[in-house]
Amino acid sequence: MPDFAEPLARLIQEVKRLPGIGQKSAQRIAFHILRASREDVDRLTTALVDVKEKLGLCAICNNISDGEKCLYCRDPHRDRRRICVVEEPHNIVPIETTRTFEGLYHVLHGSISPLRGIGPEQLRIKQLLERLVDSDMEEIILATNPTVEGEATAVYLARLLKPLGIKVTRIAMGIPVGSDLEYADEVTMSKSLENRREM
Amino acid sequence: MPDFAEPLARLIQEVKRLPGIGQKSAQRIAFHILRASREDVDRLTTALVDVKEKLGLCAICNNISDGEKCLYCRDPHRDRRRICVVEEPHNIVPIETTRTFEGLYHVLHGSISPLRGIGPEQLRIKQLLERLVDSDMEEIILATNPTVEGEATAVYLARLLKPLGIKVTRIAMGIPVGSDLEYADEVTMSKSLENRREM
Repeated sequence: MPDFAEPLARLIQEVKRLPGIGQKSAQRIAFHILRASREDVDRLTTALVDVKEKLGLCAICNNISDGEKCLYCRDPHRDRRRICVVEEPHNIVPIETTRTFEGLYHVLHGSISPLRGIGPEQLRIKQLLERLVDSDMEEIILATNPTVEGEATAVYLARLLKPLGIKVTRIAMGIPVGSDLEYADEVTMSKSLENRREM
Repeated sequence: MPDFAEPLARLIQEVKRLPGIGQKSAQRIAFHILRASREDVDRLTTALVDVKEKLGLCAICNNISDGEKCLYCRDPHRDRRRICVVEEPHNIVPIETTRTFEGLYHVLHGSISPLRGIGPEQLRIKQLLERLVDSDMEEIILATNPTVEGEATAVYLARLLKPLGIKVTRIAMGIPVGSDLEYADEVTMSKSLENRREM
């Protein structure tokens, strides 16, 4: 690694800590900052600090929120009889991008993982149950990740929620649209076969 | 695009302005910041501001510097009889990475580009000439980019410097090591043939 002036070396170091940024990208960004106007850099640092200072969690669904309730929980047009359960706030992004789900969310902030010592009591499950009391809830969609932990969390929640008489569904796992069967791994392929539908 | 709480949307917007960062990377980074500790975010913002506040240009070679002279100009072990001319400070990085050049640098801060209205007088060329006065300079290596502008700048500098009796060289253009001839473009291939060496 060539030597950099200390503040530049420090910025490269800090930028490298961001997800998906390696040494080369960090250097490129650092040199960009060096050339950028002071106003641009101030806007970036203000945005960074504001995210930490002005955002908290929604009191209802634990999504990220700039107020007591998040964008979805305070939107009167969302369908209050459907809740989609996700592991993390950023998992809401791909679901919203589809524009096909109009219900509310519930963010668990994690998944059950005995290996990392995370049990159901560490997740925001109690709050989910409280939302169901005296509600006319029709469906809980379990959209935890298709991983061992996400699957374990889904199974746990299904067992917990079904006795309450609420319809519990799980997002489908299968071959991604536009991909080729050749590239599917064994587990995905068998899930895809298992979940086959009549045409 | 799904809706984000305002501070988060703003951070994504600002991060997207960085080079090489698209919407998805920006989202990923923004959610990372959201989860990061306040100390980590403060270290990043301090590093960003420090780069703008604590760095200037070397009085000799115009490289980025945290003092009057840059790391290379103040290093007594560098060979003062060789100067490598580059367009931008970040162009020094790949050269230093080779660990084969032990001379000094000169940063032009741009290249001749009639299309963008940049002529020789806008570049730090006068400063380069001043460095040659009463010096025992042996070689000026022109390491401007292998683009139309970089090439024009190299030709201009060669014409200016050769009459002073200094050896002027240009970095070689050719097929990248480890690549395949099949992927070489026409211009690179012809440069590679033109610069062939006896074995």
